[in-house]
Amino acid sequence: MKVKQAASQVSETTSPDKSAAMAAKRILARLYDPILSELGRVEERYKAELSSDDPYIATLLEYIEDYSGKKLRPALLLLAGKACGKVTQDHIVLGAVAEMLHTATLVHDDILDEALLRRKRASINALAGNEVSVLLGDHIFSHAFEVSLTLSTTEGAKQFSRAMAVTCLGEVMQVNNRNNFELSEEKYLKIIDGKTAELYATSARLGAHYAGAKPEVCDAFYAYGMQLGRAFQIMDDLLDLLGEEALVGKTLGSDVEKGKPTLPLIHFLAHADAKQKALALTAVKAGAKGHDELVKLLHSKESFKYAAAKARGYIDSAKQGLAVLGENAIRPLFEEIADFVLSREL
Amino acid sequence: MKVKQAASQVSETTSPDKSAAMAAKRILARLYDPILSELGRVEERYKAELSSDDPYIATLLEYIEDYSGKKLRPALLLLAGKACGKVTQDHIVLGAVAEMLHTATLVHDDILDEALLRRKRASINALAGNEVSVLLGDHIFSHAFEVSLTLSTTEGAKQFSRAMAVTCLGEVMQVNNRNNFELSEEKYLKIIDGKTAELYATSARLGAHYAGAKPEVCDAFYAYGMQLGRAFQIMDDLLDLLGEEALVGKTLGSDVEKGKPTLPLIHFLAHADAKQKALALTAVKAGAKGHDELVKLLHSKESFKYAAAKARGYIDSAKQGLAVLGENAIRPLFEEIADFVLSREL
Repeated sequence: MKVKQAASQVSETTSPDKSAAMAAKRILARLYDPILSELGRVEERYKAELSSDDPYIATLLEYIEDYSGKKLRPALLLLAGKACGKVTQDHIVLGAVAEMLHTATLVHDDILDEALLRRKRASINALAGNEVSVLLGDHIFSHAFEVSLTLSTTEGAKQFSRAMAVTCLGEVMQVNNRNNFELSEEKYLKIIDGKTAELYATSARLGAHYAGAKPEVCDAFYAYGMQLGRAFQIMDDLLDLLGEEALVGKTLGSDVEKGKPTLPLIHFLAHADAKQKALALTAVKAGAKGHDELVKLLHSKESFKYAAAKARGYIDSAKQGLAVLGENAIRPLFEEIADFVLSREL
Repeated sequence: MKVKQAASQVSETTSPDKSAAMAAKRILARLYDPILSELGRVEERYKAELSSDDPYIATLLEYIEDYSGKKLRPALLLLAGKACGKVTQDHIVLGAVAEMLHTATLVHDDILDEALLRRKRASINALAGNEVSVLLGDHIFSHAFEVSLTLSTTEGAKQFSRAMAVTCLGEVMQVNNRNNFELSEEKYLKIIDGKTAELYATSARLGAHYAGAKPEVCDAFYAYGMQLGRAFQIMDDLLDLLGEEALVGKTLGSDVEKGKPTLPLIHFLAHADAKQKALALTAVKAGAKGHDELVKLLHSKESFKYAAAKARGYIDSAKQGLAVLGENAIRPLFEEIADFVLSREL
């Protein structure tokens, strides 16, 4: 089952739609068009930093390079730079650092999730073991900070190290609430703010900052990134339940099966009677076997619709926040990126 | 079996000697005497940084605080500062950062080693699981970098992030050579330079740098730290084979059992005939059951003596390198710290 314009069209249609995935790629290509050459330089720098003289380590790092997917964080950073002034060499470095940090978290996430697949290939932990994954993730983290110190000012290093500290705590909170099916929506949002939104927000803010934007504009980009990140994670959680394994490229339903209560389930449990709750929790515990039953139950309370509407609310608010930019040639792209998050096919 | 002045006295005595451990503590207390108040401030700062508003995370961080042991890295840093000029607020921050980074590596090492004990208590991964350990380690790394950016210059952040990137690669190389009993001494040294010596060396150099020392003096402290670190790791590897579990406070023989070839074994395998090699490898594979046999074999080729002599060589060279300081009231302490590494009881 695909998630396409889920905010308005959450339904029980079942056939995967590869042309939708391709359409998403086309949309992204168009959105990234104004920063295409800069994004190429970010990718070049990112790859150069993930290299080594040691042949074994070089092989592992090359493999990990492909963890980098849509490059949404560098893209936000570059577009924010362009919206606020000029994209500089600092932006290229910042973009590479953002992507390195994101990659390091993915390497460590795959250990946590015991994920076997990442972007349709074997995950690095499946390939080289958890030990190597821990250490390579640590290396990429440390090296990203090292690279961030080549910026013309320390603001980038400061913001990114703070953001990563916050991100990790969000993830610890998530683990601590594993199998806590009493998790409140408020706490769920706090967790996803940390684990997902913080790095988007920081990337957007730094893009504006290094283009010389005023503090209130930088803050507006930060708020935009936070809300975009929230919406992105909610959609990701929807995909985890409603996605198509072949399209998502990772093990399906793994979040809920692993006891991570996500928004649709939280909504359902808050609105179901005791009998329905019990059915849902039994379905969760049954893992893959209970998946269809769980989806059916959640549909019965319109819990997917609720989550998608919530995501749309954040997207609307993200777009409104950038009114501070006034007339601006790049601003419409931020609106389109926000909308794109709602129509994710990945 | 204890390791006490192993460089000159490697023997087969067996009874643990708690008074030796207490003597070691007394020696350290004396060596640290000139920086006692500063070390207290480092510890205060370290503890303040390992805190959280979230009660669950606060509990975990408090538990992890105790991973900090002899504080050798901050001590080197502060003493180098004192030897080269004045200990400043920067030194306090640097000391806390060094200890945070060291703590983060210990948290992740315990996952790699599947260690159940750390400093005679349950390790954090035994207590809270591998996932929490990965994430908390990441948090402490990131936060340490964040703290390093409050220094008056960026040198500390630059050096520490570079050192950590190197450290992690040393550890990856170690994992890649797991069960490689053909590992050369040269490669073993490269691994321990990365995984252990780099952070000592960087701490010592930064202590000198932030006291305004000339580059050649900073480099001499870096070289001192590298050689101290090498000797420390060689002695650690000796302890892993010859130590007393109650004294070491961690699972004994775990390195070799886990297929990490350390210097005594590397020496033995390079000097044994085919039959002896086969006996040793069988003993290694037998784990705890083969431990006594392995120790006996390694004694037969004086492989412990060789490793201890090697450590002593690095210590001698470390001491000589600080001649660049000339007449200096603190310099004799560096010589004593170096000697202390050889007589470790821990």
